[in-house]
Amino acid sequence: MIRVGIIGATGYAGQQLVWLLHQHKSTEIIFLSSYSYADHSFSDIHPQYDRFLENVCINIQSIENKLHEIDLLFIALPHGKSFEITKKALNLGVKVIDLGADFRLKNPLSYEKWYGLQHSCINLLSASVYGLPEIHRKAIKKAQLIANPGCYPTASILALAPILKHGLIDTKSIIIDAKSGVSGAGRKASIPTLFAECNESIKAYGVGGHRHTPEIEQETSNIYGKEITLSFTPHLIPMNRGILATCYINLKEKQSQEDLYILYKDFYKDECFIRIRKNLPETKWVKGTNLCDIGLCVDERTGRVIILSAIDNLMKGAAGQAVQNMNILFGLKETEGLELLPMNP
Amino acid sequence: MIRVGIIGATGYAGQQLVWLLHQHKSTEIIFLSSYSYADHSFSDIHPQYDRFLENVCINIQSIENKLHEIDLLFIALPHGKSFEITKKALNLGVKVIDLGADFRLKNPLSYEKWYGLQHSCINLLSASVYGLPEIHRKAIKKAQLIANPGCYPTASILALAPILKHGLIDTKSIIIDAKSGVSGAGRKASIPTLFAECNESIKAYGVGGHRHTPEIEQETSNIYGKEITLSFTPHLIPMNRGILATCYINLKEKQSQEDLYILYKDFYKDECFIRIRKNLPETKWVKGTNLCDIGLCVDERTGRVIILSAIDNLMKGAAGQAVQNMNILFGLKETEGLELLPMNP
Amino acid sequence: MIRVGIIGATGYAGQQLVWLLHQHKSTEIIFLSSYSYADHSFSDIHPQYDRFLENVCINIQSIENKLHEIDLLFIALPHGKSFEITKKALNLGVKVIDLGADFRLKNPLSYEKWYGLQHSCINLLSASVYGLPEIHRKAIKKAQLIANPGCYPTASILALAPILKHGLIDTKSIIIDAKSGVSGAGRKASIPTLFAECNESIKAYGVGGHRHTPEIEQETSNIYGKEITLSFTPHLIPMNRGILATCYINLKEKQSQEDLYILYKDFYKDECFIRIRKNLPETKWVKGTNLCDIGLCVDERTGRVIILSAIDNLMKGAAGQAVQNMNILFGLKETEGLELLPMNP
Amino acid sequence: MIRVGIIGATGYAGQQLVWLLHQHKSTEIIFLSSYSYADHSFSDIHPQYDRFLENVCINIQSIENKLHEIDLLFIALPHGKSFEITKKALNLGVKVIDLGADFRLKNPLSYEKWYGLQHSCINLLSASVYGLPEIHRKAIKKAQLIANPGCYPTASILALAPILKHGLIDTKSIIIDAKSGVSGAGRKASIPTLFAECNESIKAYGVGGHRHTPEIEQETSNIYGKEITLSFTPHLIPMNRGILATCYINLKEKQSQEDLYILYKDFYKDECFIRIRKNLPETKWVKGTNLCDIGLCVDERTGRVIILSAIDNLMKGAAGQAVQNMNILFGLKETEGLELLPMNP
Repeated sequence: MIRVGIIGATGYAGQQLVWLLHQHKSTEIIFLSSYSYADHSFSDIHPQYDRFLENVCINIQSIENKLHEIDLLFIALPHGKSFEITKKALNLGVKVIDLGADFRLKNPLSYEKWYGLQHSCINLLSASVYGLPEIHRKAIKKAQLIANPGCYPTASILALAPILKHGLIDTKSIIIDAKSGVSGAGRKASIPTLFAECNESIKAYGVGGHRHTPEIEQETSNIYGKEITLSFTPHLIPMNRGILATCYINLKEKQSQEDLYILYKDFYKDECFIRIRKNLPETKWVKGTNLCDIGLCVDERTGRVIILSAIDNLMKGAAGQAVQNMNILFGLKETEGLELLPMNP
Repeated sequence: MIRVGIIGATGYAGQQLVWLLHQHKSTEIIFLSSYSYADHSFSDIHPQYDRFLENVCINIQSIENKLHEIDLLFIALPHGKSFEITKKALNLGVKVIDLGADFRLKNPLSYEKWYGLQHSCINLLSASVYGLPEIHRKAIKKAQLIANPGCYPTASILALAPILKHGLIDTKSIIIDAKSGVSGAGRKASIPTLFAECNESIKAYGVGGHRHTPEIEQETSNIYGKEITLSFTPHLIPMNRGILATCYINLKEKQSQEDLYILYKDFYKDECFIRIRKNLPETKWVKGTNLCDIGLCVDERTGRVIILSAIDNLMKGAAGQAVQNMNILFGLKETEGLELLPMNP
Repeated sequence: MIRVGIIGATGYAGQQLVWLLHQHKSTEIIFLSSYSYADHSFSDIHPQYDRFLENVCINIQSIENKLHEIDLLFIALPHGKSFEITKKALNLGVKVIDLGADFRLKNPLSYEKWYGLQHSCINLLSASVYGLPEIHRKAIKKAQLIANPGCYPTASILALAPILKHGLIDTKSIIIDAKSGVSGAGRKASIPTLFAECNESIKAYGVGGHRHTPEIEQETSNIYGKEITLSFTPHLIPMNRGILATCYINLKEKQSQEDLYILYKDFYKDECFIRIRKNLPETKWVKGTNLCDIGLCVDERTGRVIILSAIDNLMKGAAGQAVQNMNILFGLKETEGLELLPMNP
Repeated sequence: MIRVGIIGATGYAGQQLVWLLHQHKSTEIIFLSSYSYADHSFSDIHPQYDRFLENVCINIQSIENKLHEIDLLFIALPHGKSFEITKKALNLGVKVIDLGADFRLKNPLSYEKWYGLQHSCINLLSASVYGLPEIHRKAIKKAQLIANPGCYPTASILALAPILKHGLIDTKSIIIDAKSGVSGAGRKASIPTLFAECNESIKAYGVGGHRHTPEIEQETSNIYGKEITLSFTPHLIPMNRGILATCYINLKEKQSQEDLYILYKDFYKDECFIRIRKNLPETKWVKGTNLCDIGLCVDERTGRVIILSAIDNLMKGAAGQAVQNMNILFGLKETEGLELLPMNP
């Protein structure tokens, strides 16, 4: 049994992680911790867990005393909050999967620029592994510290990886227009995410400046082998869950849709969580699962390929991927605890 | 008083038109007609009109006998259904505003290609005016037949027009990623638009092949002066109303955001329904009105400008624009009956 | 022109009031005030007002200096916040319409019990008029201080008034099961009203103890002539606007549905905002208007009548009714500024 | 392994059943059948099943040839459609769980009255068992034919059963005000269940005449021991899933809330799917599970108890309960395949 602790357990991503780990056959939850709800029963905050989970959330201070009891620490905190606890955990030989943004960017200057914060664990950056298993599976196996990817980057990078490897595209042309449900904004009191503010409307936000941009660029550049600069625009959609990324790329030369479909099928042929679709993906088809559905369409008129990917932002975009990383890290079957059938409607 | 008839009055666009015309000071509704609900009281189909409107929908056959009683015929029918009645109306000297697609494309071969239907009124195409007042106001004033623009083209063309006129862009780079509420799909029984199919999901549709593409290309080409081919991708959003178009364009040379803002402000300075915004538009800010909100963001990293426009698809995207066209056509104040304040939440 | 000031203008009810008053032909807005957004431009908080309204929200302290400039003060604050300013306004001869709860209950002990707060303006209670025009029109005409009814009480009292007057019911049997959109919870940062908390769920709240209960009982008792105790249960529905009240009452003796329908039609025959419906009301049929739709169904099997009423909680349930009260108070046509056609979808 | 066939597999309830049975360890799906989609791959109709389920839906005619291959037939068809196939299956020794309404009412005259259809299998009615395990577990164990309860009756009967057994209530006073998500209306093309018709609105329907009324009365009468006539009013809520039933009952004499809470706790103490809550239930807390949450509130002012129950209409209200019945019928652990943790948000 893998003994795990979860910090930030009552947020949407944290809670989804609890959901998965509670049902996972090979893990034991040693503690849950919450900034906002320390000393509350977890099922008081999330009453759906009544009868299933009786843990009390411990406060942040108590975590240190518990670190020696666990094998793996999951952190689901806002950026800038993971540095200290990560250091302490690693020093004790506890592995860490950070669902936050603190260890995703390899370049500390980039972190500083985009997050407006100095990075206080620069020495850990080179050792940390960007936890997108379809791209970095080998490194994940040997990692001590895994930076779990952001939700938008997961959808975006998975959509782009095969064609980037293939190479025959104009890399200056990449545009990612992404749409997310409101749970992506987190579970904190705020007016812009009130029901009556989000319902019956759609908006873009962070245009030209969203923090997931450098993360997507870092990974796509690595895959392509040369530096890539791209456009990324997120939108807020009146639904609870789901991300759809619509990616536009100019083809260097003519490609048939069938050829690209085969390329994608082939690239992901051993991947259990990627489905290449003949029809266009819809977020409801992956809801509640760790799946990423990808579809593509060659537009001969414009010489462009449009690649669409759909994930559940709290699953493959956060907690599901964290569990997938854990499974790899601890030598379990990669799908353990993640064999979930999408539930509709 | 302008005496008007409305064909297709019980669909979502038709009904919105009835809503506007009923409250318009200078129009008198002579008849409403409906394929599906002939001989039904209009307020039986749309009970919100109880006490306000007591008309009975006449059947399609009865329209011909009524044509001589009206000055203006509005048609809100699916494509391919407007040809015959338009001819008859024009022959009697009745002006026509067609909210459908039958007279929007000047090139009948293009119509045939995209709509899979032969155009049976080719002779009317050259005389018909594409009813986007901000672009074609002068021609609208003198028109007999106005082709009211599609919802997506309205949002897209208005977003692109100023920068196209300006010229300093790479016209091969234009990408329009648009998002629409479900009312855009019309009021007809169908499984894909059921509540439980649309709610809590998002999808793209018609990728690379949506019929509004040639319409957008025709108009942007006219504005630019050279032929433009662009990408247009519509998405279905779980909300009733609203379209947001996110447009991506490569700048030929560096432009400051402020300069482009001023360019847009200036281009639309006399327009009563266009608001150029410092912040990014949200569809709720135009809900229930004929407004089009436009915002833009220069992304220096990529050399791209991202232009966002928001409209109410049933208003500026259909019925509101039809009334605006009517006002121009009959020499009324352009805002008459359209001085609507957006209602939130 | 009636010169008006609005306190609490940026909340959902306050903003709806601004919406109505801005378009009202006989009013001039002298000031808007906001606790949370003092010194902000109103259209910064509610960007849909851009171009329509350029007022800056004044702070609460500045109001006193402005009171002498107005004829009428609207207050849209949480309970307990209206006492002082109301006194000052009345002393200066300014009439007051309070959209909050502070002057609705005639019995200060009842106020204390249900609101957990001592009433500090007991002397004003007898003079204040409960502003439900369909019941208290005469008193409203002569009032200095109008307590605008709560949203649930408006729907409930209007549903029950005719049959209570009629008398032939078992008054111990009255049950009101009400459902409201989320805007009723107000525009303040809170977790329970976040999109992802409210969407895709329904719950009851305040069961057996909601503060609108004594208000409904006070008014229904007055109408009936004897004290009434009843059950009132509100529910939160994942939609922005609308209240549906489903009322259950045992009939003392058999009544036909047709007879009761005629009774209701007759009771409200001169009312411009009440529609008695043959079919069952839906909230969308009154959306965006000051209308109250009422339908009823006699269930012969149980000897019960079920009466349903639908209102827009921000209109007839708040701002619309406040304007209706203003119209009456100042001798205007009662429907002025309220001749709104419901907008769907 | 229990070999099962499913008729009506592509509807919302049928599909949810496929979801459960596909993941159930002790069942093998022998065939899926669909009226509307015969010869289609199941995952063409419900693309979320891609990779998980490759069955082709067989047509209704082919079922007969397949009956000898199965142990259990699930039928999820509209009422009036189950008679013939049920007879044939039972004759072959195949057990039947009918998710439709055809065998729920013991009295064929009642069926005829409420469903407007003659019952053509009257001889099967006495042998059929009403499949609400918490009430009829013993009979279910020995049944050949199980009538799976309706969604509203499940929520209603479970809410009322303990206090009915207890006896100290006025049985003439029972009122059930129920609210359901739109999936309850089924997956068929229709205008009233379109997104733009249901979203942003609430309505009651079938007031005084909904077909679930006699079903609730039959079962509550059996539990109480005397005939009960009650009021049942369903409402349509803009959400995909979930039923909340708010039940009002007059207490014959004073009862404390704590006593009733203990009574409920005790009544359901051995039930794995019933949670008696200290706080009020919300439908999201049971979403995606076979749970029924019940909360209650004694209103001393009115001498009434208000009992609230929440279920997932497609789970405990349909497919989940069908699997629970199967588990009992075949001697499996009752929770097998149903140990689901509610997923939020």
